[in-house]
Amino acid sequence: MPYREDLVKIMNNNTFSGVLVPALTPFLVDQRPNTEAFVHHCKWLVRQGVHGLAIFGTTGEANSLSVEERMALLDTLIDNDIAVEQLLPGTGVCALADSVRLTQHATNHGCGGVLMLPPFYYKGVSDEGLFASYSHVIDQVGDARLRIYLYHIPPVSQVAISLKLIERLVKDYPTIVVGIKDSGGDWQYTTEILKQFPQLSVFPGSELFLLDGLRHGAAGCITATGNINPAGIRRVFDHWEETDADELQEKISQIRKTIQAYPMIPALKTIVADFYGESDWLRVRPPLVQLAEEQQHQLMGTLRELDFGMASN
Amino acid sequence: MPYREDLVKIMNNNTFSGVLVPALTPFLVDQRPNTEAFVHHCKWLVRQGVHGLAIFGTTGEANSLSVEERMALLDTLIDNDIAVEQLLPGTGVCALADSVRLTQHATNHGCGGVLMLPPFYYKGVSDEGLFASYSHVIDQVGDARLRIYLYHIPPVSQVAISLKLIERLVKDYPTIVVGIKDSGGDWQYTTEILKQFPQLSVFPGSELFLLDGLRHGAAGCITATGNINPAGIRRVFDHWEETDADELQEKISQIRKTIQAYPMIPALKTIVADFYGESDWLRVRPPLVQLAEEQQHQLMGTLRELDFGMASN
Repeated sequence: MPYREDLVKIMNNNTFSGVLVPALTPFLVDQRPNTEAFVHHCKWLVRQGVHGLAIFGTTGEANSLSVEERMALLDTLIDNDIAVEQLLPGTGVCALADSVRLTQHATNHGCGGVLMLPPFYYKGVSDEGLFASYSHVIDQVGDARLRIYLYHIPPVSQVAISLKLIERLVKDYPTIVVGIKDSGGDWQYTTEILKQFPQLSVFPGSELFLLDGLRHGAAGCITATGNINPAGIRRVFDHWEETDADELQEKISQIRKTIQAYPMIPALKTIVADFYGESDWLRVRPPLVQLAEEQQHQLMGTLRELDFGMASN
Repeated sequence: MPYREDLVKIMNNNTFSGVLVPALTPFLVDQRPNTEAFVHHCKWLVRQGVHGLAIFGTTGEANSLSVEERMALLDTLIDNDIAVEQLLPGTGVCALADSVRLTQHATNHGCGGVLMLPPFYYKGVSDEGLFASYSHVIDQVGDARLRIYLYHIPPVSQVAISLKLIERLVKDYPTIVVGIKDSGGDWQYTTEILKQFPQLSVFPGSELFLLDGLRHGAAGCITATGNINPAGIRRVFDHWEETDADELQEKISQIRKTIQAYPMIPALKTIVADFYGESDWLRVRPPLVQLAEEQQHQLMGTLRELDFGMASN
C-alpha cells in the first residue's frame, strides 16, 4: 500500500483531496454489469495511487444503471476490501426518493462522501427548487456522517449549480456540503468557486485544469481519463510545487486531448479493453455506442505514437 | 359512460386517438403521492370525455417518481376501474433496465400503450444509440401487445427524436411503434412527421396545434392543459370539421396562453386545487416550486375574467 499515508490524511480531515477517478463500469454480453471486471479495475486504480474512486459518475454510465444495480455494485466493492473512505459514489438522480435511498445506503456503509447531481429532468428550474432538492435528501438521510460533493456538469445535466445555490447550501449545511466537482469546463466559474468558497474541496472535472487548479487552491481533480492515466495524473498532483510540474502537466494534457477527439466513454473503454486484453470492456449501454473498429485502431495507434501505456506513465 | 363508443373505437383499431391528458400527480404533506386524489382526478377527466390518460408524463412529474411509485399508482388506477385501454403510462427513463421493467408492467396490465422518452441523461447521442435503446426495451419486453408512442420533447429532455430515427423504428417495429407525442413546439417538424409517417398516430403536445393538426392528419393531442380544460378541448376534437371549429379553437387557445404565462405544472395544480377546494393539490416535488400566493391569485383572477371554469367549458 504505497499511498497509505494519503488514506490516513483523507480520514483525518474527513474530506477528499488528490486524484479521484470516476471508474468505468464494464458490462457483460447480456448488458448486466461485469462485477468481477469492475472490482479488478477499481483495485488496479487504487494500486496506481488514485486517492479516491468516484464510482457511478457520468463516466461510469451511472444513469444507465438502476438503483438496485448501483447498490449491489457498491456492496461488492466493499465486500472486496476497497476502503470505504476512498469511495465517493454518485447518488443524485431525478427522483428524490431514489437519491435518498442511494445516499442513505452509501452513508450507512461509511463512504467518504457522495457526489450528487441535481435532479436533471426539468430544465430552467430555480435555485429555490434545487436548494429544496438537496435539502430534502439531507433531511431525509438525517445522518451527521453524510458528506456531499455537489456535481456541476451543465454540458450533460443541463442543470447548473449556481454560486448563489452553493452559498445557500454551505451556509445551511456547513459540515455536510463540503465539496464540488466542477465539470463545467469554464475556468472563470472554477476560479469564482475557489475564491468565494475556500472551505469547499473543489475538484475540476478534467486534469487539463489540475495544475492551474492546485495553484489556485483546488483539492485535486476528478477526471474520466484517470481511468487510463492514473499514475501520470497522480504525478502532477505530487509534484505541483516542484520545477517539473508544468512539464508533467503538459504530458497528461497531451494524452487527454488525444482522447477527447473521440466520444469520451467509448474511447476510454477501448483503451482499457486493450490494456486488460478483454474485449468485453468495449461494451457500453445504450444510448452510448462503442467505437467502430477503425476508430479503435486509430486511437490506439495515436497513443502508441505518443509512447503511452496505462501503467507506464 | 357517455363516450363508450370512442373507447370501443380505440379498442378496435388498437391505437389511441382524440384528447389524451397527462394527468397531474398530487402529493401529500410528506411528499408521498396522494393516491386517493389521483384516482379521483383521473376519474373526473374520464367523465369529462378525455379519450385517454397519459399518466406519468412530464406534467405528471413522473421523473420525480421512483419506479416503484409509478407501478403502485398504475396498479391503483386499474384496481379502481379505470379502463386499461385508456391508459398510456410514461415508461421511458434513463436506465434501460428500469424502462424495461415499467414497460413490461404496463403491457402485462394490457394498457393501451406506453409513452416512451428516450434515455435523457447523455446529450448529443447518436440515432444509432437511441435506436439501440428503444430496440433493447422492445426486445426485452418481448410482447406483441406492446404499443409504443415515442415522446419527442426536446425543450425538456434535450434529446430529440429525429425523422431518421422514426423511419428506422417504424420500419423494424411497424406493429409496435405506432405513435408519437410531439412536444417540440415546432410546427414544421410536426407537419414533416405527418407527411412522412401517415401510419403513425401523431399527437401534438399542446392544444394550440389541435385544429391545425387534425386538418393535417393528426390523431388528436396530448396536452397538459387537458387537466383543467378537458371538455373544451374535447369539443374542438368533436367539431373540427364543423363551421364553429375555429371559434372553439380560439377559446381553448386563449386559456392555454393565459396559463403558459406561468410555470405550467404549478399553474395547473393551482387551478385544480381551487376546483377541488383542496390546497394539497398545490404541492409539487422539488426541483419544481409551487406558485407564490400572489401568482395564484393573479392566475385565478385572470381565468375568472375569462369566465373560465374547469367543468363548465
